[in-house]
Amino acid sequence: MFVTLLTDFGTLDGFIGAMKGVILSLAPDACIIDLTHDVPPWDVWSGAWALREAAATFPVKTIHIAVVDPGVGTQRRPIVLQHQERLFLGPDNGLLTLAAPTAAGWHLDRPQFHRQEVSRTFHGRDIFAAVAGHLAAGISPGECGSPIDDWAVLDLPAPVIGDGDVTGVVLRSDRFGNLITNITASVGLADRAWRIDLDGRSIPLRSTFGDVGDGEWVAYLGSSGYLELAIREGNAAAALGDAARKRRVTLCKA
Amino acid sequence: MFVTLLTDFGTLDGFIGAMKGVILSLAPDACIIDLTHDVPPWDVWSGAWALREAAATFPVKTIHIAVVDPGVGTQRRPIVLQHQERLFLGPDNGLLTLAAPTAAGWHLDRPQFHRQEVSRTFHGRDIFAAVAGHLAAGISPGECGSPIDDWAVLDLPAPVIGDGDVTGVVLRSDRFGNLITNITASVGLADRAWRIDLDGRSIPLRSTFGDVGDGEWVAYLGSSGYLELAIREGNAAAALGDAARKRRVTLCKA
Amino acid sequence: MFVTLLTDFGTLDGFIGAMKGVILSLAPDACIIDLTHDVPPWDVWSGAWALREAAATFPVKTIHIAVVDPGVGTQRRPIVLQHQERLFLGPDNGLLTLAAPTAAGWHLDRPQFHRQEVSRTFHGRDIFAAVAGHLAAGISPGECGSPIDDWAVLDLPAPVIGDGDVTGVVLRSDRFGNLITNITASVGLADRAWRIDLDGRSIPLRSTFGDVGDGEWVAYLGSSGYLELAIREGNAAAALGDAARKRRVTLCKA
Repeated sequence: MFVTLLTDFGTLDGFIGAMKGVILSLAPDACIIDLTHDVPPWDVWSGAWALREAAATFPVKTIHIAVVDPGVGTQRRPIVLQHQERLFLGPDNGLLTLAAPTAAGWHLDRPQFHRQEVSRTFHGRDIFAAVAGHLAAGISPGECGSPIDDWAVLDLPAPVIGDGDVTGVVLRSDRFGNLITNITASVGLADRAWRIDLDGRSIPLRSTFGDVGDGEWVAYLGSSGYLELAIREGNAAAALGDAARKRRVTLCKA
Repeated sequence: MFVTLLTDFGTLDGFIGAMKGVILSLAPDACIIDLTHDVPPWDVWSGAWALREAAATFPVKTIHIAVVDPGVGTQRRPIVLQHQERLFLGPDNGLLTLAAPTAAGWHLDRPQFHRQEVSRTFHGRDIFAAVAGHLAAGISPGECGSPIDDWAVLDLPAPVIGDGDVTGVVLRSDRFGNLITNITASVGLADRAWRIDLDGRSIPLRSTFGDVGDGEWVAYLGSSGYLELAIREGNAAAALGDAARKRRVTLCKA
Repeated sequence: MFVTLLTDFGTLDGFIGAMKGVILSLAPDACIIDLTHDVPPWDVWSGAWALREAAATFPVKTIHIAVVDPGVGTQRRPIVLQHQERLFLGPDNGLLTLAAPTAAGWHLDRPQFHRQEVSRTFHGRDIFAAVAGHLAAGISPGECGSPIDDWAVLDLPAPVIGDGDVTGVVLRSDRFGNLITNITASVGLADRAWRIDLDGRSIPLRSTFGDVGDGEWVAYLGSSGYLELAIREGNAAAALGDAARKRRVTLCKA
């Protein structure tokens, strides 16, 4: 049974280790897999995206724990979603919903499946890891919570498709500074030549980095299915300065 | 059999991988769990704290390796401590003693359980990983070392309890900049109203972050059982500047 | 079956998690071990070195995936090398060749062992993780590719051995700022007294850090078998400034 962990806890402290110990104490046969603990602090959007990218490849029955939780200790609910035979545990703030867009859900409101004392600030250990341990040991989501259907959902903004043009935005940048937009192949990237404009920069659409020279801008369909903008062996996010995210991108028929 | 790793080696190099290979070569069924490798270099105190937080939740029989070791290559001894059916391996510099406060101990002085060639600078691989591999494969701590009772101990400074007031210190800050003090619930945090003072700042005692507005200071009982001071969705350590650690905190009956 | 991962992908995104899911979907009994994901972006040399250090201790049959791949999406081949009963998968850019200096090799040119859709930018997931999953599940390297013998090889520069002196270079620095050179014990480090010069600094050759005072320079035979230069409880790389790598080091008979 695989249990994956994705958090914004970083790795300076003992937080992640404490979660792992709780899971393994309840489910000694669980195989724990780190997805990432370096989601920017409280950045639910980045966490949701990373979870979506990572979880997509895991086998059925996997249990995914995700904790990016600015509302810990408030009334936000701890929840579990079931999507395509996988389980996703986390706070009810939208974090799980890019990875589990259509799902059944439960509010984790049964304290017998939590740690004996639940702190107000560390639900990752005291609720999510504990419930995941019980789930990995064989209980069903319906046993550890009450059904709900009104959890918070994070929406990917849709690109605006005009007559011969498409307007999108930069959603995020990755470790290499490549910019990921909200534009997918479904707008017809493959079929026709496009001129791509980012802040007055005209950027060629190619298959991959390798099709331009070092230091040149290039647009290509990225590995998660979205149009990306990059500088070959450079850092596009750094080149744009602080406000890379939400920058507008337009495509026009060439 | 779980073997956990906590070091200050960072993850730029092949050090951690080399330790894992040594363990798995000796004990192929061991399940290796990373606690953290981002303890600040040579910061025994931070490492001891993280080990205490993380190890507390692990099942019995777990083997914990911890290496934060400014004295590697000097005469400091490699040791193993046994505490509540868990084993803790590391340098004899106090690192293990917050997690294993009462323990039996052995000096790892039997070279037949070390790697064939022991370097002067990488005991993590050549002694600790090797002995942990043998322990995971079934030998007892008494077989791999001579009993000792004089290892170095790290003491948590105790708060000073006066007549109607308590004076403590900030021990450390976490990834979010929250400040952890040495004051526990046992001073009566739950029972009465307190005024909390940090450097002339008056900070309200609440249940959690959620009880104050964004950007406001708040004190609360943290998830490891100690009073913490934080700025909601802010960074208290950064707000205090360089010298957050060891800052004095006073509580007075309100 | 152990499958190790070494990349320059960092841990901000879902990349690593996606690779793990692909492997576990194909080989649910695989035990995945993170070596490091913090190789500096596109730094093939640093990645090759870390892989060499880490892989050396792993048991036979281990499958090592390494991805530091500035040429992804170009014509560079995805390959697997077999060295001493271990397998090494990665791009054909020399990355694998310090760890697997003498090997048999195959070009991973059989699409039936790749993911159904192979992106142009994420061969870590779509080719290397997928083939590793098949290998972990029992296929042989010869089934997933055509034999080759002309892969790119990374050469460690050899020190120049003169009449009574040796001239080498700094290859890299580690997390602690210690400088690793290309000079090994085979030049006779143990046998005679040497004067070591680094940019006009005269540095004593000792057994370990502990043999000099805090803040002093020291040279010693490092844990991977190469001469290292360090400042005890200091950061030698930072002391040298930007250009630590490739700095010349000379040894003269004292």
